[in-house]
This record gives sequence, structure tokens and C-alpha cells, in this order.
Amino acid sequence: MIRFFAAPGDISGNLIKLSHDDEKHIRSLRLRPNENFIVCDGNGTDYICVLSQDGDHKTARIKEQKNSPGEPSVLCKAYIAFSKGDRLDYAVQKSVELGVNEVILFKADRCVAIPNDITKKIARLGRISLETAKQCGRGIIPVVSYCGGFTTALSDAVSSSGLSVLLYEDEKEIRFSSVLTASLPVLHEPMIISTITGPEGGFEPFEIKQAQELNIPVVTLGPRILRSETAPVAALAAIMYETGNL
Amino acid sequence: MIRFFAAPGDISGNLIKLSHDDEKHIRSLRLRPNENFIVCDGNGTDYICVLSQDGDHKTARIKEQKNSPGEPSVLCKAYIAFSKGDRLDYAVQKSVELGVNEVILFKADRCVAIPNDITKKIARLGRISLETAKQCGRGIIPVVSYCGGFTTALSDAVSSSGLSVLLYEDEKEIRFSSVLTASLPVLHEPMIISTITGPEGGFEPFEIKQAQELNIPVVTLGPRILRSETAPVAALAAIMYETGNL
Repeated sequence: MIRFFAAPGDISGNLIKLSHDDEKHIRSLRLRPNENFIVCDGNGTDYICVLSQDGDHKTARIKEQKNSPGEPSVLCKAYIAFSKGDRLDYAVQKSVELGVNEVILFKADRCVAIPNDITKKIARLGRISLETAKQCGRGIIPVVSYCGGFTTALSDAVSSSGLSVLLYEDEKEIRFSSVLTASLPVLHEPMIISTITGPEGGFEPFEIKQAQELNIPVVTLGPRILRSETAPVAALAAIMYETGNL
Repeated sequence: MIRFFAAPGDISGNLIKLSHDDEKHIRSLRLRPNENFIVCDGNGTDYICVLSQDGDHKTARIKEQKNSPGEPSVLCKAYIAFSKGDRLDYAVQKSVELGVNEVILFKADRCVAIPNDITKKIARLGRISLETAKQCGRGIIPVVSYCGGFTTALSDAVSSSGLSVLLYEDEKEIRFSSVLTASLPVLHEPMIISTITGPEGGFEPFEIKQAQELNIPVVTLGPRILRSETAPVAALAAIMYETGNL
């Protein structure tokens, strides 16, 4: 069923105000008056609606409400270093499909592509998150934000999550899977897991040391070197698989 | 360490003939005479080499040989339906990074983008496989091929694998993880697992019936609808994770 998002303030009684863009989209789909579509409040509730005419505007009339089925039982935060070209577009799109809760960008020492206009970049990635959330059936629109440098990313991850891990291509011993399976049984609800992944050139040894000083496990995803846009997605797939969300 | 692939026929004694392209690449890297690089035979063996001059040509002189560390313990075959735009490029690149053994393309009923020149498309995807295998440290270059229609894909998968699964967005009950964990203990070595994924529009009900008639489990990867290029990669990540290869 086609899906839109509305702000909670747009919902009043059994009517939902549609944005200009969504109204245009609905016109282009030529929905019949009795055809159902979903408006999600972006907060985990889906409203099954039909079209209704309100003067010149089309609105959505609520027929039924239920919990969005697309939200996983674990809240994953992906801390991702700035990366070249369309790599971040890809990382955001795939992360949203796989159930990420939040994407937080940061600057690492070896970042070679920090956008001139970070606000504009974040806005663009936010639109990708919205479009993907609509397509894949999410109950929230995962927020994309920018937290500053690597040190801030580390401290934010530690203070906001039950488990934070840093993925490092030069780590040869400690497997992500070992840390994950050992940590899950002792995580409090809601389980919040943060992954921290670096830019194309990887992390600097002093950055690894910083993470270790904060007791953040530094782990490997195996012997193959994953690209900067693949590592966060593979880690997320592993978390979703391990927690029964894939 | 920088990595190249050579055909087994190019290796004689302790010298390896470098292709024109690899020689050009090595020149551009300005490798010093005593700097090591890897030449892999594409069959699971890595040769640690240094440069050697052979008349006008540069060759690789073998210092040491060892098993390529990048090969997983499970052989995964990804049967992927033709898909629009650069989706297949993405699916091949990410599958190779995550350890796929072979990618096989097929035509499904709802394919909207079958290339006019399939041979050319396969060749292009083969080059993506090669480049990715070099970058991520594989011990083989996963072959990309085309097998024909959906029926052929199904019978090929069944006859060549210990476990074949078809991923279907409309399946609501049977989880991929249940089938995978139930099947692994009874798979013979070498474990060969095939995943079959559809085009943008998904599979037709008659195609699902065909798979079921061949006893191929039809499974879901959870409540979020994954794009045609994401589903094979998520399934592969799950297999690699479950078998200790991620």
C-alpha cells in the first residue's frame, strides 16, 4: 500500500492534512476515492486512510489505525565518517531499508571529502531517508544529523547507547559477532546499539587508541576489506539478523 | 598490500607475467624495487611478490606463497533478476565484498529492464567483480553469468546447491533465519547456498508456485520491503554472519 508521512500536528480527529507534495503525488497516482493508503505519523503509528475532499484540497480520512510493522525491536545508531561521492547516499538509503534508527555523520582524521556546506548535505541525506522510509515501510523517518569531530562521535555514542562498537579493518582478532553475542543478553531495554565506521582511508591509530580509552570495542567484520559505505550496512544487517529483525 | 590477479598460466617458476593493465597500474603506483605486492592466482593462493625487470617488461618475482585469507568457508551463489539502472552494479560490488562465490543473472516475469546486449552487460559486471575482488582482498574473482529464464534459475540453483531459498516480499511467516539455522547443521561440505531474488516489481504468484513445487523455501527478510539490489546483499550478510564469516 502506498505510504506517506505526516507530522503529528497535521492529524486532527479523523482527518489528516496532506502536504502539497503528497497531494501532488496522490493526484499523479489517480487513486480512486475508496482506495486505501497509509499515512504514518513518523512515530510508529500507521493510519489506513481514504481520500476526502476538503474544499479545494484533498485530505486523508482515517479508517483505521495500527502500529507500524516496519520498526525493529532494537534501536541502531550508525555513526558514519564523511565519505566521497555518493557513498553516503548509498549508506543512508541501505541503512534506512535495514532498519537504522538514526544516522550521525562526523569528521575523522582521514576524511578527504568534507562538504563545504554540511547543512545542505545533511538536508539532502534527510530527503533520501524520507523517500526510503516511505518506500520500505518504516514507522519513523530516521534522522540524519552531524555531530562534529571524531571525539564527539565517540562520546555521543558511549553516552547514548548500551553498546558501541568501532569497526576497524586492521583489527584481526576481535570479531564483531563475538562482541555482539556477548553483549546482547546484558543490554537493557530498549536496546540501543551504535556502530562507528571510518572514511575511505580508514581510521588513524591515534583514533583507535581514543576509542579504546573509552572502552569502545574495536572489532573486525572479517578478512575482506569492506568499503566505507558497505561496512555500516553489513554491521547493521548483522545486528538485525542476530536480534531477529531480519 | 596492493593486489593483482594473474591467470594460473602466467605463473612459471618463481616469476609471474603481469598483464599490460597491471604493469601500467604498477608503474603509476611508483612501487620501489623491494616493495611487496600480492599476485593472486584467482584460485585461493596469494603470492607475495616484488618487482623484477624482464627486458622491457616488469614481472613479479615470488618471495612467498600462502592461502588467500579472504575466502569464506561457505560458497554462496546469488541468483539475481535483471534490474534497472545501476542496481546490478551495486548488487555485484557489495556481494563480492561480502564474499559471494558466483552471481547468476536471470529473467523474471516482471523484469522491466532486460539489456539489449546481455553479453556486454555480463562483461561489465565481470569487470566490477574483478575490481572489487582486488580492492577487498578476495582469493577468487567471482564469476558473473547469465542463465536464462526463471525456470532455469530455479533448477540450476536446486541442482547445484545444498540449500536454495527464494526471498519474497509478500511472504509473511517463514523467516530466512529459521530456514538458514535449520538447514546449516545438515548441509554437506562444501556448504553451497543459493539465494534467488526478484526484480523491482517482485515475483509473480505463478513464479512463487513454481519455486514451491521444487521444494525451494520461500522466505521473508522481515517486515521492511528491501529494494531489488538490497535483498541479495542483506541475505548474503546474514549467511556470512551465521556461518562465522563476518
